[in-house]
Amino acid sequence: MYNIEELSQKIESQCKELPIYSSESTLYEPIKYIMEDGGKRMRPMLTLLAANIFNDNIEDAMSSAIALELYHNFSLLHDDIMDKASLRRGRPTVHIRWNENTAILSGDAMLILSYQTLSQGAPKGKLAELLDEFNKVTMEVCQGQQLDMEFENRESVSMSEYIDMICLKTAVFMASALKMGAISQGASRRQQQALYEFGINLGLAFQIQDDLLDTYGDQATFGKTIGGDIAVGKQTFLRISALKYGDEAQCKIITKSRNYDQVKEVYDALGIKELANRAIEGYFGSALDGLNQCFEDRERTQMIRDYAINLLKRKK
Amino acid sequence: MYNIEELSQKIESQCKELPIYSSESTLYEPIKYIMEDGGKRMRPMLTLLAANIFNDNIEDAMSSAIALELYHNFSLLHDDIMDKASLRRGRPTVHIRWNENTAILSGDAMLILSYQTLSQGAPKGKLAELLDEFNKVTMEVCQGQQLDMEFENRESVSMSEYIDMICLKTAVFMASALKMGAISQGASRRQQQALYEFGINLGLAFQIQDDLLDTYGDQATFGKTIGGDIAVGKQTFLRISALKYGDEAQCKIITKSRNYDQVKEVYDALGIKELANRAIEGYFGSALDGLNQCFEDRERTQMIRDYAINLLKRKK
Repeated sequence: MYNIEELSQKIESQCKELPIYSSESTLYEPIKYIMEDGGKRMRPMLTLLAANIFNDNIEDAMSSAIALELYHNFSLLHDDIMDKASLRRGRPTVHIRWNENTAILSGDAMLILSYQTLSQGAPKGKLAELLDEFNKVTMEVCQGQQLDMEFENRESVSMSEYIDMICLKTAVFMASALKMGAISQGASRRQQQALYEFGINLGLAFQIQDDLLDTYGDQATFGKTIGGDIAVGKQTFLRISALKYGDEAQCKIITKSRNYDQVKEVYDALGIKELANRAIEGYFGSALDGLNQCFEDRERTQMIRDYAINLLKRKK
Repeated sequence: MYNIEELSQKIESQCKELPIYSSESTLYEPIKYIMEDGGKRMRPMLTLLAANIFNDNIEDAMSSAIALELYHNFSLLHDDIMDKASLRRGRPTVHIRWNENTAILSGDAMLILSYQTLSQGAPKGKLAELLDEFNKVTMEVCQGQQLDMEFENRESVSMSEYIDMICLKTAVFMASALKMGAISQGASRRQQQALYEFGINLGLAFQIQDDLLDTYGDQATFGKTIGGDIAVGKQTFLRISALKYGDEAQCKIITKSRNYDQVKEVYDALGIKELANRAIEGYFGSALDGLNQCFEDRERTQMIRDYAINLLKRKK
């Protein structure tokens, strides 16, 4: 089995092999820029970790891993245009660094590149199955973004609507990353499904953690501006919980104010941070239970558990 | 063999089977809108016409045909944002009818849908080959659009640069549409290549015709505003030719003026319309020669020749 450091190196060196580095087209400059800015590489890591459960030879999963990382960065690139975000991982976003047209078009090229990577590298006999999963999840991520944008125009969103949205926007992507690693190695349907469900629960925990960091994170390590969600009145786990438990005056502040200190004071008074932490622990517990039930050999799944634990301890 | 009318009906009924019609997601509304607005369906028609050369059973080519039509409409949708176009085929463009974010995201979904359509419907054993061609051409179309945008910021572009650009933006797409029809039917490499080259020449003729219609077309039948290219100083076959043959005063009008009547007067004086028509005839002649050399059975290629002739007689 490979350790995290080794897998990480494999991902980085594979990214360096992308055809964007052997072409002069200016179309690829923003793709290089966003691929090189030190994201977490979480999705390809999940794919390789899942693949490594079944077999020490993980090369067959590599094209899925890189395709997912490309797709993820493509979606950030286009989401940043739509959200009018100016900063990503501490650097100007592509539409700020270049312009909006370049960001749209390079994003499109990046989406195509993700399909190209998957098509060219998929193991023989697994291409159709991997493409089915990739097509399904990429479309779901778009649906999640669509819901996210629709929620912006609504005063209130129920917790179940919110969970559905983050499931589509974040969790299914982590779930499919794991599943594609399993498919590449010829895992059984039951094993594929167990990893998929592990990914859903981990993804929900991860997104709520993301909401938490946006308000309660440390500016020095976070990369984005703290309080960004509050500033735009974004629907988050924190906001929706506060509206559920707050009194009339508190709810008024939540819905009307865009002031970080004011809104955070209400969150503090209602214990929203603790509530979010309990939700994270709940989803994470379900994730681990499901994994343990399916895989009796705890040794081969230990690394994926450790990785997930570290993910939820993150500061950015 | 099917005639054009029958092929056209097959394309329309296949479009109606797309999964966007069995979903309530608002993400799909712009996709339905742009797919239903009566485009020429030229690319899927080329795919089916090419398939029909080899075999009366053209069902195996259908998924390629629809995937190409989806991709084409996706590219229009995003190009219209980048070009700030307000009208497409006589109706408001998607980013005007909805908004820019919806146009970006629904476009992304449409690109994914094109891959989904191809992946799910490709004939067994041909998926990898068809995907290779599709990946190649979709990326080339992005590169063409990138060049097109770069040309906007340049005062002059050489004719050979221009031909390279329209080759990527328009011609390769028609060429690959034909080639994918041939691949689906198990045609030989030589036959695939002959159809590809036919498509390149036809595509170049088609794009120069497009430039011609933008200035010399009839407003009543054209769908877009006549003189749009002149109004934004777009690099076209007409402009580049006029700059090549015009004297100093004429070149000054071409580069500085955005007035339709003024610029057209220069074009008229220089005989640019006739020059463009000769170029169209030249490329079209090469297209037919290549086709006739490869396919001895003239009967089976007659329909594709007739279709191409009609394409170049079009008014919009």
